[in-house]
This record gives sequence, structure tokens and C-alpha cells, in this order.
Amino acid sequence: MNKNNYAVIMAGGIGSRFWPISKASLPKQFLDILGTGETLIQQTFRRLQKICPAENILIVTNKNYKILCQQQLDEVVEKNILCEPSMRNTAPCVAYAAFKIHSENPDANMIVAASDHIITKEDEFVRVVNDCLVLSSANDVLLTIGINPSRPDTGYGYIQFTEEGLFKHKKVRKVKTFTEKPNQELALNFLDSGDFLWNSGMFVWSAKSITLAYRKHLYDMYTIFEEGKAFYNTEKEQEYIDRVFPICKNISIDYGIMEKSDMVYVYPASFGWSDLGTWGSLCTHLDLDENKNAVIGNKVMLYDSSDNIVNVPKNKQVVLQGLIGYIVVESEGTLLVCKKEDEQQIKQFVYDIKHGK
Amino acid sequence: MNKNNYAVIMAGGIGSRFWPISKASLPKQFLDILGTGETLIQQTFRRLQKICPAENILIVTNKNYKILCQQQLDEVVEKNILCEPSMRNTAPCVAYAAFKIHSENPDANMIVAASDHIITKEDEFVRVVNDCLVLSSANDVLLTIGINPSRPDTGYGYIQFTEEGLFKHKKVRKVKTFTEKPNQELALNFLDSGDFLWNSGMFVWSAKSITLAYRKHLYDMYTIFEEGKAFYNTEKEQEYIDRVFPICKNISIDYGIMEKSDMVYVYPASFGWSDLGTWGSLCTHLDLDENKNAVIGNKVMLYDSSDNIVNVPKNKQVVLQGLIGYIVVESEGTLLVCKKEDEQQIKQFVYDIKHGK
Repeated sequence: MNKNNYAVIMAGGIGSRFWPISKASLPKQFLDILGTGETLIQQTFRRLQKICPAENILIVTNKNYKILCQQQLDEVVEKNILCEPSMRNTAPCVAYAAFKIHSENPDANMIVAASDHIITKEDEFVRVVNDCLVLSSANDVLLTIGINPSRPDTGYGYIQFTEEGLFKHKKVRKVKTFTEKPNQELALNFLDSGDFLWNSGMFVWSAKSITLAYRKHLYDMYTIFEEGKAFYNTEKEQEYIDRVFPICKNISIDYGIMEKSDMVYVYPASFGWSDLGTWGSLCTHLDLDENKNAVIGNKVMLYDSSDNIVNVPKNKQVVLQGLIGYIVVESEGTLLVCKKEDEQQIKQFVYDIKHGK
Repeated sequence: MNKNNYAVIMAGGIGSRFWPISKASLPKQFLDILGTGETLIQQTFRRLQKICPAENILIVTNKNYKILCQQQLDEVVEKNILCEPSMRNTAPCVAYAAFKIHSENPDANMIVAASDHIITKEDEFVRVVNDCLVLSSANDVLLTIGINPSRPDTGYGYIQFTEEGLFKHKKVRKVKTFTEKPNQELALNFLDSGDFLWNSGMFVWSAKSITLAYRKHLYDMYTIFEEGKAFYNTEKEQEYIDRVFPICKNISIDYGIMEKSDMVYVYPASFGWSDLGTWGSLCTHLDLDENKNAVIGNKVMLYDSSDNIVNVPKNKQVVLQGLIGYIVVESEGTLLVCKKEDEQQIKQFVYDIKHGK
């Protein structure tokens, strides 16, 4: 295993879309939302250990989740849990990890990945990432991993690529544009055109390339995290981060770097990826009964019910009758019953509860 | 208050129709099912205290519920909690209470009432029962209280009365027949004919009249409870009952006495009575929101939902979206979601759970 290989896991999300299973106190990445016996971050960590040693895996998360990370990840190194003092976006998060890695190892290459996605074909994932790491170590490029789309999904951003390959690597293409989530018609056009991929939010690059990209496109942030090199892996690191993090611009890496740089290439891949962004997407990864009900919970009885997603505590006695196309979720004493087609309203429910509607 | 007035509260039911709120371990009569701050048996006891002193109120219940009675009813006298060792029907239950009362006070008059019904007009109830008690003390009759029907309800039995009054009391009529729960068409005919009343299951009679009726119509039971007079209010009472109760015939007082006797009269009344036999009937006694939802629970949020009955623990956070015409009940960790129109299936669910379906 190449000791220059690093992984950065972004684990600061507070995912409200899976409320009430996922809450700010225990967000999605720390849950075994698929009932596999592993939480999503445990899956992610274990998967990345096939690419680099545990001591090269960094996790960027909110301060409040440090203990959860330690509880769930036996092999994580404490100094590798980077604690954000406040919610920013992905650009400061990636910068912190990238500059810290660069200060440790100027020859580092890294993959940046979310903590709460699912990948069903791990071997193919490992092959793709290793391929990308080799490319990024030899070329001053910013690689993003694009997923070959299997349907006109309106829940994902898309990456349009050009004809231009990365030297002899014809498969790896220069990126033309990043797009926001499209409407249904546009998504169909994207799919038909054949030159769009899903934006997985996974990046591969050398520490050198990304730090230089910050210098070019987000100079303020570059200055902050470059100065931080005096403090990384010292007892003053947290103090420094607590001071500078809140003044960082709230901007995504997509918007702040990827859309601006002309060194961005996309690696098209197919490794059974999903961002598990909705109950609907979750459902495609769960076993269904003969009436297309996806049930997590050992004591759930269904009568005249179909097309439901049920996720309740293991030993909770639940009887459902006459429900078609609903989400029924109970977690920590909170119950949600909601039509699947209206799941986008869940964020509103959480807002209403917080604001004492 | 007339010291010859007694009340017998029948509280042995294990009501499964309101599962999971009502369970064998805590049946309906011991629940504050309307959210009024009083359980149904507490309401019943308090109501009957307007008719007779607490020391004249007897409760016949299952052995297992004795403690619940004592916990819920501060003023109940311990010797007045009559414990059935096993589930029988109403004839043995009433006999036990009637013979025990007769042994204490040969001049006693009594009202027999269920513990889990609701009466919204208490003053009128008190007036009717006092009227009945006066009539039963002066006449060797078995009085039943009939409710003037307000709709062709198919959930109740009906009492057909004749033209014949009780001497000068023209309102009180001799009973022609007791009927089972009718179908919709028959119920409409009953209502149209004007000589049918709902069978409330409430009876008024003198201890003398009812004990003699047992002698005439249920002689075996008469013998058993007449012999019991040697043991009532002694330390051997329970032992005797435990021995003889199981050999009593499993028969209702309606079938065993009321349908056979020619001394049965009905007192027509209107005091806002319901047997609360179904979630639907319960609903008519609960406050509805602007979307006709009946909600018990302080933290229930409803979106795009109407015509539901929601009964959940006070502080449970519940969000319901897109539900129309459902029963949503949670009790002691068990959740039921069921279409209102299918509530008759609830007994089946309970059966399936018991038998590990």
C-alpha cells in the first residue's frame, strides 16, 4: 500500500432528510441505516482502508461528532479527526485536511469522499481510486469521480465532459461544466446526450495540486490554512482552527474550485454508488417483501399494505394496516408517518418542530 | 342518600377492541381513553357516588385487576371489590354481587352498570337511576335502562317495548324482546318503528327481586350464591368463590334472566350514553380539529391529514403527513396504524400477535 496515499472523509453533515432516524445528535453517517451491521461511516472507513493505511485516513467532522467517530472507528487515529468548530461548507473542510496532509507529506495524494454514501461494488471502487491516485500523482490535475448514470435522476448534480482526454488516458475527460440538480426533462436530455455523469462528490488529487488550486482560486482560504502549517499536529492546532474556521467563506469546493479551475478532469466509473439522499434511494438498497415493503424491524406486521418503507426499533411491536406508499419511521421515541412522494417535506417538519410550530 | 341504594360496577372486561391502548394487562375501563383526566372506571365510580354512598358501591372484576381498582379508586372499600377467579359472563358476576348485597341488606336496591361506558349528562343519569330505584323498591320488577336511539346504530343490541306500562308509570314499559346487534336495514326499521331502544346493559332492581329471579331461571347459580351467604364478608369468601365460580355456567344475564322473565320493564332515557365500543364511537366524544382529526397527545403535528384518530403518549413527538381516515395509536411501545373503516380487524391483529403469526 502506497504510503503517499491519503483519504479524507467528510463527516460533518447533520442530515435532516432522514429525520427522525437521522438527527443533529446522531446524523445519517453514524447510523446503520441499511441494517447491515455497519454504520455508513464504518463502511466508508473500512472501504478506504483498502486504499491507504488507517493512519493516513483523516476525518473532517463537527466538534460534536468527535466522540461518535472514536466510538465507531476503532482504528482511527485521534489526531486524524479534524474538528470543525462551526458548520461551513466543503471548501474550508477540504482545505483544512489538504493543508494538514501537505504539511505532513508534500508527496501525498488523496481521495476526498463523503462519509454517508453507499458503494456496492467495493473492488471496482478500489480499482478506480487507485487508478486515479496514480494519475494524480503524475499529473497536476484535479480529478473528480463521475458515475455513469443509470436513470434520469433529478436528485443528483451532473458533470458534462468534453472529448479531451488526459494525455493517453482516453477514458479520463476534461470537464466542461458542473450542473445543479436538473428537472426531469433536462435530466432525460443529459442521459440521452451521453456526455453527462452523476457528480459523486468524490475527488482525487495530489496535496500539491489542491493546495495550489486554493492559492489560485480561494486565496484567503489558502492563506489561512497555509499559515496553519505552524500548528498542525501540535497542541495549538484546535485553538488555531477554532479561531480561523469561522471566518472562512461558506462555499462549496465545487463552486469555489472545481467550476473555476481549468485542470479538472472526470473519471467515469460504475461501482454501485448512491448518496442515499432520500428514503426512495435507500429503498433500492433494502430487501423488499412480496408487497414491495422495505422493513427494518423484527416485530412489524403488515396487513393490506404495500410499497412502504418501515424503519422502527428492532423489538418494537408495530401493526400497520391499509398503508400504501408510506414512510413509517420511529427513532428515539419520535414517530413519522409520511407519504413517500412527499418526503421532500420532511425538512419542513424538522424546521417546524425546531421552531415550535 | 338512601342507605338501601347500592351500585354494582362490572369491571372484568379485557377489551381488545381498543388495542394497543387497551390490553389484558390494562383494559379500557382503567384508561383515561378520552383524555379527560379520569379513567372510565373513575368516572363511573364518581357518577354512582351521586346515587349511593361509596361503601355501597361494589365492583366485580377479575382477580388480576383488584390492585388497579384500589389504585384508581381512593374511596372504594376493599371488601366491595369482588374478585372473579376466571372469566365468566355477566350472569355469575351479577349473581355474586346481588347475593352478597342481599346477605348484607335484604332491603337493598341496586343499579348494575358497566365500568367502561360514558355518560355525558350526569344529572339526567342520576335522576333516571333514582327514579328506577324508587320503582324497583316498590315493585317486584327487573328494570333495564333503554336509551332513546339517535341513529340506526348496528353496534348495539335493541330492546323492543310493548304498550303496557308499569301501573301508573306510563313511561316505563314492559319489554317485548331483546335483540342482538341488527344489520343496517333492520336497525333502520327499529328506528322507524319507534318502539325500540338501545340496550345499555344497565339494570335496576331490588336484591330480593333479582335473587328470586335467579331462583326461577338459573337455579344452579341461585344455589351456589345462596350457599355463599355463609361466607360473604368472612375470610373464607374468596376461597368459596374460587371454588364455585369456575363451575358456574358461562351465560349472560340478558340471556339467562332478562329474556326469560316476565317481570322485565324498560325505562327509556337520554343521558348521552355510549358504550365506547369502537374507535369510531370514541371519536364522537373527542374534540376535533378543523380537519376532523381527534388527537390525544401534546406533540402531534399533522400535515395534509384529516378524519384521523390519534392517541399517543402525551410527550411523544409524532409527525403525520398524508393520512386520511386512519387510527394511529401508540401505547406501551406498541404502534398501530389502521384504517378507521377496518377497525374490526384489530381483534385479529391481537390474535395474530398472541399466536406468533
